[in-house]
Amino acid sequence: MWYKFLMLILLSNDDGINAPGLKAAYSGLKNLGEVFVTAPESEQSAVGHAITIADPLRVREVFENGDRFGYAVDGTPADCVKIAVLALMERKPDIVVSGINHGGNYAANIIYSGTVSAATEGTILGIPSVALSMNSFIDHDFSRAVRLALPIIKETAEKGLPDGTLLNVNFPEPSIEHKGVKVCRHSDRKFQVKFEKRHDMRGLQYYWQGGEMDLADPDPQTDIRAVEEGYTTITPIRYDLTDQKFMEKLKSWKFDS
Amino acid sequence: MWYKFLMLILLSNDDGINAPGLKAAYSGLKNLGEVFVTAPESEQSAVGHAITIADPLRVREVFENGDRFGYAVDGTPADCVKIAVLALMERKPDIVVSGINHGGNYAANIIYSGTVSAATEGTILGIPSVALSMNSFIDHDFSRAVRLALPIIKETAEKGLPDGTLLNVNFPEPSIEHKGVKVCRHSDRKFQVKFEKRHDMRGLQYYWQGGEMDLADPDPQTDIRAVEEGYTTITPIRYDLTDQKFMEKLKSWKFDS
Repeated sequence: MWYKFLMLILLSNDDGINAPGLKAAYSGLKNLGEVFVTAPESEQSAVGHAITIADPLRVREVFENGDRFGYAVDGTPADCVKIAVLALMERKPDIVVSGINHGGNYAANIIYSGTVSAATEGTILGIPSVALSMNSFIDHDFSRAVRLALPIIKETAEKGLPDGTLLNVNFPEPSIEHKGVKVCRHSDRKFQVKFEKRHDMRGLQYYWQGGEMDLADPDPQTDIRAVEEGYTTITPIRYDLTDQKFMEKLKSWKFDS
Repeated sequence: MWYKFLMLILLSNDDGINAPGLKAAYSGLKNLGEVFVTAPESEQSAVGHAITIADPLRVREVFENGDRFGYAVDGTPADCVKIAVLALMERKPDIVVSGINHGGNYAANIIYSGTVSAATEGTILGIPSVALSMNSFIDHDFSRAVRLALPIIKETAEKGLPDGTLLNVNFPEPSIEHKGVKVCRHSDRKFQVKFEKRHDMRGLQYYWQGGEMDLADPDPQTDIRAVEEGYTTITPIRYDLTDQKFMEKLKSWKFDS
């Protein structure tokens, strides 16, 4: 355990400073090195890659049993990672860990994910970064997920990641048998959104947004299929968004009226 | 002008329902067909691909000179497009247009962009979508940008886009000579963020987030260089985030402790 006192880990999430998944990750990661926590004051799910530029950001020191646990930030997950690295920490962390999120982050869904966005911000800042999520909204037992996470974090810190690439990791729900670790691509299955029209207590109309994930990806080589089947999935994510293939065709279009 | 009464355009933005760039786009697009507007009640810059799932969404009809201009939504740009297509419009629009944004959306910056996120949501819903931005925060004259936008929108509606691909368009600032239209990839230059520690009127500490774009991309084939030089840039964007190249290498890592 030569890592101890050597590796500096920045831990964040999108479920907020009080989330059980954050505390479970904190306890586990302390076995690998020093852990610095900045997390949102309140839950920030589905915030995408938002940052706060029109409002002040406040930072609150959070204690647990008399020891400093970390800092709560009244902003988004991306804000938390940015402010930690650029204003709060004394040196750049060796790795950024986001999670463990309560609920999976996979398929086309990841573009809405605050958990992934915290890791993306680490990557933008040039730090190897890993997003961790557990595929259950109900079960609170993060112990197996933490145990599975540690070697992934250790290996990532040792080997490093290509500049601009992060790892998105999903653990299967605790109640099903763990089948192993699978490196796989993200599915292109989408969240199927529905709006419900409702009326408030004053009779005024509003809409509620909800929906569910289309889980039926027939391709077993995707994150969504593998995690549902009991695998821990690891997907390398890269924000190189240019559609190179379509670019040549687009050059033949007419853009003058 | 056979498009009139045929093409149904959904127009949104992230600068809000009162933004001059939205009104300029509305006036221009009316020459191409019917325009349905849903835009955020307030400015939503740097919201990334956020959606509102923990709060109600309210929709307000907005009139101008006695005619209905559109609907204001107290949510994000992605919310606006989603609620329009899934709850407010009588039929699916033929094209989604987002903008014209006041300020460029290019390089690594696009992952923070509410303007791009509205177009992304259109793409997720299976509709050809275009994000439009003008590379100036100061100049309010959108007339040239609108003139340049119309043939791009027309061509996109006629030809369609590959499933999952959107167009991100930047117009040069009005004061410099227009050199033509360039199809190019997005630069990987990043926003250089800084935090300033300040004190409020009660003496309490807060942070303000700011910074500037690193504009010096030496590669002339990128959006950032081309738009600064006076070109209208068109970048096809695709959210296929798996890093295929790194995936093979990752399979050789050890994930069991």
